Amino acid sequence: MTTMELLTRAKAAKSAMALADTDTKNAALLAMAEELLAGQADILAANTQDLEAAKGTVSDVMLDRLALTADRIAGMAEGMRQVADLPDPVGQVLRRVERPNGLVIERTAVPMGVIAIIYESRPNVTSDAAALALKAGSACVLRGGKEAHHSAAAIVTCLKRGLERAGLPADALALVEDTSRASANELMTASGYVDLLIPRGGAGLIRACVDNATVPVIETGTGICHIYVDKGADLAMALDIVTNAKCSRPSVCNAAEVCLVHKDIAPAFLPMLRRRLVEERKEAGQIPVELRLATTAAAIIAGSPAGEADFDTEFLDFILAVKVVDGVDDAMSHIAAHSTGHSECIVTCDETAARAFLTGVDAAAVYHNASTRFTDGGEFGLGCEMGISTQKLHARGPMGLEELCCYKYIVRGEGQIR
Amino acid sequence: MTTMELLTRAKAAKSAMALADTDTKNAALLAMAEELLAGQADILAANTQDLEAAKGTVSDVMLDRLALTADRIAGMAEGMRQVADLPDPVGQVLRRVERPNGLVIERTAVPMGVIAIIYESRPNVTSDAAALALKAGSACVLRGGKEAHHSAAAIVTCLKRGLERAGLPADALALVEDTSRASANELMTASGYVDLLIPRGGAGLIRACVDNATVPVIETGTGICHIYVDKGADLAMALDIVTNAKCSRPSVCNAAEVCLVHKDIAPAFLPMLRRRLVEERKEAGQIPVELRLATTAAAIIAGSPAGEADFDTEFLDFILAVKVVDGVDDAMSHIAAHSTGHSECIVTCDETAARAFLTGVDAAAVYHNASTRFTDGGEFGLGCEMGISTQKLHARGPMGLEELCCYKYIVRGEGQIR
Repeated sequence: MTTMELLTRAKAAKSAMALADTDTKNAALLAMAEELLAGQADILAANTQDLEAAKGTVSDVMLDRLALTADRIAGMAEGMRQVADLPDPVGQVLRRVERPNGLVIERTAVPMGVIAIIYESRPNVTSDAAALALKAGSACVLRGGKEAHHSAAAIVTCLKRGLERAGLPADALALVEDTSRASANELMTASGYVDLLIPRGGAGLIRACVDNATVPVIETGTGICHIYVDKGADLAMALDIVTNAKCSRPSVCNAAEVCLVHKDIAPAFLPMLRRRLVEERKEAGQIPVELRLATTAAAIIAGSPAGEADFDTEFLDFILAVKVVDGVDDAMSHIAAHSTGHSECIVTCDETAARAFLTGVDAAAVYHNASTRFTDGGEFGLGCEMGISTQKLHARGPMGLEELCCYKYIVRGEGQIR
Repeated sequence: MTTMELLTRAKAAKSAMALADTDTKNAALLAMAEELLAGQADILAANTQDLEAAKGTVSDVMLDRLALTADRIAGMAEGMRQVADLPDPVGQVLRRVERPNGLVIERTAVPMGVIAIIYESRPNVTSDAAALALKAGSACVLRGGKEAHHSAAAIVTCLKRGLERAGLPADALALVEDTSRASANELMTASGYVDLLIPRGGAGLIRACVDNATVPVIETGTGICHIYVDKGADLAMALDIVTNAKCSRPSVCNAAEVCLVHKDIAPAFLPMLRRRLVEERKEAGQIPVELRLATTAAAIIAGSPAGEADFDTEFLDFILAVKVVDGVDDAMSHIAAHSTGHSECIVTCDETAARAFLTGVDAAAVYHNASTRFTDGGEFGLGCEMGISTQKLHARGPMGLEELCCYKYIVRGEGQIR
């Protein structure tokens, strides 16, 4: 089926999704989870096809991302059940006002309509994204990466069965068959068909969407996150936070990429930082962090000299750019010039410096004395997430079910005129 | 000054605006109101220049929109004082959660940064838009129409004096000097400088922004609003609502352009409608409404035959397209195919039909038994408005101060790591 045919069918199905009650949507999610498990053999066979085609052409990390196992499929099914357990955002009255003229005006959460998601190689995104979009009352059009296409198609076949068992239209979920760049562009410009486009992937994909899309887009993901260690920091706490933010999972967007250190404590802190991130990790048989040092930091500890690009790069690896700054204002200027608006942290016991930082830094999440790794739907108490928005319009930070909805005003009168 | 210089200065001023407390912003608004009145002679002289240049090249309606008087300037000053009286949206904690690990996470309203507004000929938009953007803690870059440029420049000169008197940077408010299409395109693509672009004007301007902008945009305004008169309607009420929605101010976006009538009551209702909108208005010396009738309606009453485009045109005039439909589902299908997502109304005493319409119609505001003319910031209790959003992302319907803000998560910890 062409992408436009899929979109036309998804558009036709959106009203049934919008009108579906909570029980029906939850029944569909549970049926979809069952069908995933029932279709395990087909899904694994399709995944083997993908893995064999990918071997030799992609990295081992990519191959691991691509690989499905019985355990991973069980995890996907469990994820769908968890979404069924979350409260239904649709129909919530967000604000209610009764006007002096008797009009009752309710700002009410409603589905977006058709949510399209462009993603890359992880097959589990297929079921995660579908579960969230459908629970939020929208039809869902998925466009995955070429490498994972057989896997995604097998997963979607199972999920559609689950939708139908609950009496919802199978057309409310679709996987774009064309995995060339043309289909991504088609989604970006499908005005009137796509109500919201969410790109999940690398910086190139996201930039292409922002530059080319004529449909509404939410940018996700790129995170050049900074930890600023202030003069007033508890150095042991700062060390723990930087280590956690850098090393606990370097491949994710909420990992830290840059450490800024106040000049007064740099002579004490930087050697501690080097010991913890380099020597101690080597001694423990862990991957040591490569420190890329601005000249101000290189004057105090050993490390690679930082190049121009190192303060504007999302390393997603065991690499940390380090710079000494004059104080909180200097740190904020650096962040304003280099931040991607994701998550930024100050470590300090000085409340005045903390307040200046939390107020003055422009990002989805600003932290005082905690790791940037907490920027996550689950950690924020949303129960799930479709991605981390780094834009300002609509949703900022982790997007849960509420953020996948919009609202409309429902106005009830008794013949009022103006 | 070039547009890019203005933008660079506005960007530099946004931090001072974001940090300004409520008293300072309100003092600035009151000082700006005073300066408008003090500068009345200069503003009127500049307006005379604009009016003389425009004479003969624009319609009388346009000339009237363009014209300023002492009364209109007093109204603009009063508008600024009213914005000073509104609650400050910045810093409001929209949601607060304390996590089991002790993290305190506050979703907090923060300013957008730099809000750019592209508008057309009404000089009063200059002060209205500036007041709202500045009160919402953002710097404001205005790009008005060529016809009103001298007036707008004189107004902005006064307003900047007011800003400075309150200790805020004059650069936080700017009027783009270049009124050619090039400057509009410059604003649309000023990524990193413009945090939000609001086009206020005709459908062509808004389409150009949506198609070309790489900065975040909120679409405003176009309203092809429908009134559906159901079989279960109180016909006298329906007549009052249609008359009000069409005739009370036909030039605005919340005026009705289309009336859909259930086939069972069309033989009774349409002659009443014609009498009220055509004959009675003629008798009263008022402009009669031109009825453009689909064949189904033309079979019952006299009027012009409707052309293809008449159900897709925002007339903004004493013209009403009329069509007979089979019932609420047919009405909803018509609306889904022709609506601009602004305001749609059902008149009925049948609660089932009303519920189906209110749930099923996808628009910023859906009405049961009330005129679409109420879609307005003041009428919705927001105290003001920057325009009516017809998109789904971020804000929908009238945009008040809250809708001109975004939010960020402020996370406070005591050394938590993940």
